[in-house]
Amino acid sequence: MFGAFLDRVRETGPLIHCITNYVTANDTANMLLACGASPVMADDPGEAAEISSISAALCLNIGTLHQGTLPAMLAAGEAANSLGHPVVLDPVGAGASRARTESALKIVSSVHPGIIRGNMTEIRALTGAQIHSRGVDADAADAVDEGSLDASVRFLKACALQLGAVVAATGAVDLVTDGKTCFVLRGGRPEMGRVTGTGCQLSAMTAAFAAASPDRLLEAAAAAIAAMDAAGETAWDRMAPGDGNATYRNRIIDAVYCMTGPKLDRKARFEILS
Amino acid sequence: MFGAFLDRVRETGPLIHCITNYVTANDTANMLLACGASPVMADDPGEAAEISSISAALCLNIGTLHQGTLPAMLAAGEAANSLGHPVVLDPVGAGASRARTESALKIVSSVHPGIIRGNMTEIRALTGAQIHSRGVDADAADAVDEGSLDASVRFLKACALQLGAVVAATGAVDLVTDGKTCFVLRGGRPEMGRVTGTGCQLSAMTAAFAAASPDRLLEAAAAAIAAMDAAGETAWDRMAPGDGNATYRNRIIDAVYCMTGPKLDRKARFEILS
Amino acid sequence: MFGAFLDRVRETGPLIHCITNYVTANDTANMLLACGASPVMADDPGEAAEISSISAALCLNIGTLHQGTLPAMLAAGEAANSLGHPVVLDPVGAGASRARTESALKIVSSVHPGIIRGNMTEIRALTGAQIHSRGVDADAADAVDEGSLDASVRFLKACALQLGAVVAATGAVDLVTDGKTCFVLRGGRPEMGRVTGTGCQLSAMTAAFAAASPDRLLEAAAAAIAAMDAAGETAWDRMAPGDGNATYRNRIIDAVYCMTGPKLDRKARFEILS
Repeated sequence: MFGAFLDRVRETGPLIHCITNYVTANDTANMLLACGASPVMADDPGEAAEISSISAALCLNIGTLHQGTLPAMLAAGEAANSLGHPVVLDPVGAGASRARTESALKIVSSVHPGIIRGNMTEIRALTGAQIHSRGVDADAADAVDEGSLDASVRFLKACALQLGAVVAATGAVDLVTDGKTCFVLRGGRPEMGRVTGTGCQLSAMTAAFAAASPDRLLEAAAAAIAAMDAAGETAWDRMAPGDGNATYRNRIIDAVYCMTGPKLDRKARFEILS
Repeated sequence: MFGAFLDRVRETGPLIHCITNYVTANDTANMLLACGASPVMADDPGEAAEISSISAALCLNIGTLHQGTLPAMLAAGEAANSLGHPVVLDPVGAGASRARTESALKIVSSVHPGIIRGNMTEIRALTGAQIHSRGVDADAADAVDEGSLDASVRFLKACALQLGAVVAATGAVDLVTDGKTCFVLRGGRPEMGRVTGTGCQLSAMTAAFAAASPDRLLEAAAAAIAAMDAAGETAWDRMAPGDGNATYRNRIIDAVYCMTGPKLDRKARFEILS
Repeated sequence: MFGAFLDRVRETGPLIHCITNYVTANDTANMLLACGASPVMADDPGEAAEISSISAALCLNIGTLHQGTLPAMLAAGEAANSLGHPVVLDPVGAGASRARTESALKIVSSVHPGIIRGNMTEIRALTGAQIHSRGVDADAADAVDEGSLDASVRFLKACALQLGAVVAATGAVDLVTDGKTCFVLRGGRPEMGRVTGTGCQLSAMTAAFAAASPDRLLEAAAAAIAAMDAAGETAWDRMAPGDGNATYRNRIIDAVYCMTGPKLDRKARFEILS
């Protein structure tokens, strides 16, 4: 089923407005191009709303948040809201500093993003939990594995209801839920965590999938994650001796570029819990 | 003839001051190094003029324009002007927001860049046309092909005269004109549009070519475009099954790194209309 | 001996707080991941001190310094100081503009970085010398070679004592000294200078090595340089016809990713002068 969502991105070629961090902006742009969308990065408050208006979806990423950028995010979010464009929030490092947690919560309460994608620690920080964050990586205690799966699914469903959004927590096992239905995706490679920005790229790709299927945000988010997981596996298969995380970075984007709907459907491993 | 312009960059190794966007700054810096120039990125108003003074040319790119950066661009431009250094403007996304169009026009009127390089939609936005921009990509109606070539050449010549600059509009067919003579270049690959920042890289490389041949801006701009087109073709020939836009990105820069004057002359396909 | 320092980074996986430039931030993050550390980039004054507190070391890089970022650097530095975290300063382009020189000196006097890594021209600029900088590259007159080695070592030792830090000047020959002992490292490839940001990556990796061995800053800095030199050589050996600086960039990071302690010890070429 996910292949059809990828095909729909390729057919519609949506323009995705990203207000994102400068560390991974280039890979994020190339990932959007790889999946069939187009990026436009614009974070000045003087043009954020206008750029969002000509785009099909908005991706807000607080990876290198500046206080001056928050007003741009809110203005762009308001424009996207008023036009019914999907908004994806990537709360990078929420929990690692008060500024990040508060900015993410401000975005949640003002913009009401339809999809929030992060690691489990970041998601947990948005629910008001006191967390001990380790920068932009998930806390070890937050790892979702087969043993903690049921509890994690219950917790994430509650998060989705509390935050009023489809919530995706990615890691060794990926969970996506709207509070009722939960997709459990198994795929990808642990080495993806050694490439900076795979999460940022996924959030932007999620915005592209949402833009192409705005009435099915839950499935669109799950499809984007499935595509990223599949790309991580395909890319790993192409690694040669001596290759490392820089080459892996390129191969993951390449794998999305070369992915087709049927290929994605063949590779995706998931179950649906409701 | 273009090969000699590339050789001249390699011989002089000009330092190019870039005030550019954070999305493609890294590839832009590596492209400058690939062609034999050196990059220096500096966009703080407190040092922009000083840095421009020690450089050989200035490249202004409004890809992620901040209002705080515009004064730096104007100060750097003034310094470059007073020293007779070539200035290249890349009006990324002009027409997509009022802030971009107005900033680009402010630069044109204050700094008088010797070369303006963009896609046809961006160039058109600078002439005061009401346009329907699609972010940072050219509007489909603005595509230059064999059918629209004569009209496009006429239009671009008028743009050059109006803007008082050598104007380069790149796309499937590339046009460069000073208002009298027009180079028509056919080359490159459509897949270059799936790599973010190829336009930004080209604008910076144009500044390097202009720095090395400051008295021949028209030919220098045409030579830079020819080099980029040739690199896009050479890079494509090296693509293997499974490669995508991330690998293509690297191969394009690699191809410029490996390019020689004679190779460029062998590959360049162009005509001169006057 | 250097291999043990690399192993220690891999064992401890330190979180490195970088306040750095947007041109090379992505490669810097991937280099940190390649060597076994984790990056967190955060340059807003509102969170810089907090983020530095949860990190194990701080890397300050003025490559695209904004005046608004300097307070973040000072606040992060103060937090790192009070917690005893190593601080590395990369004075990119010091000497190229007054703003850069003064900002670097302000950091030196306020934050007292334990390690300063740059090229010889940048280091010299910090000692108050009137220099004629060529952007972010070393001045030709500052090249350290076998002929100028003794004088360079003497000069750099004096710099270290004046600046109160371990000082590393990298180039064709790399020197690292605390004012008494001086490591002289011979390795790497001249082509590394054609890849943007290899110096920035090295500075961040130096912070990772320092975080893992905070009581041995001199040896940690030398080990990081040895690792970068070895990676540059290993990466070059993997270059194929048609490859250029973009592929080289990836291969250098890959080589660090694949490096082991014993491999580093086999490749490192250095002597210790005291």
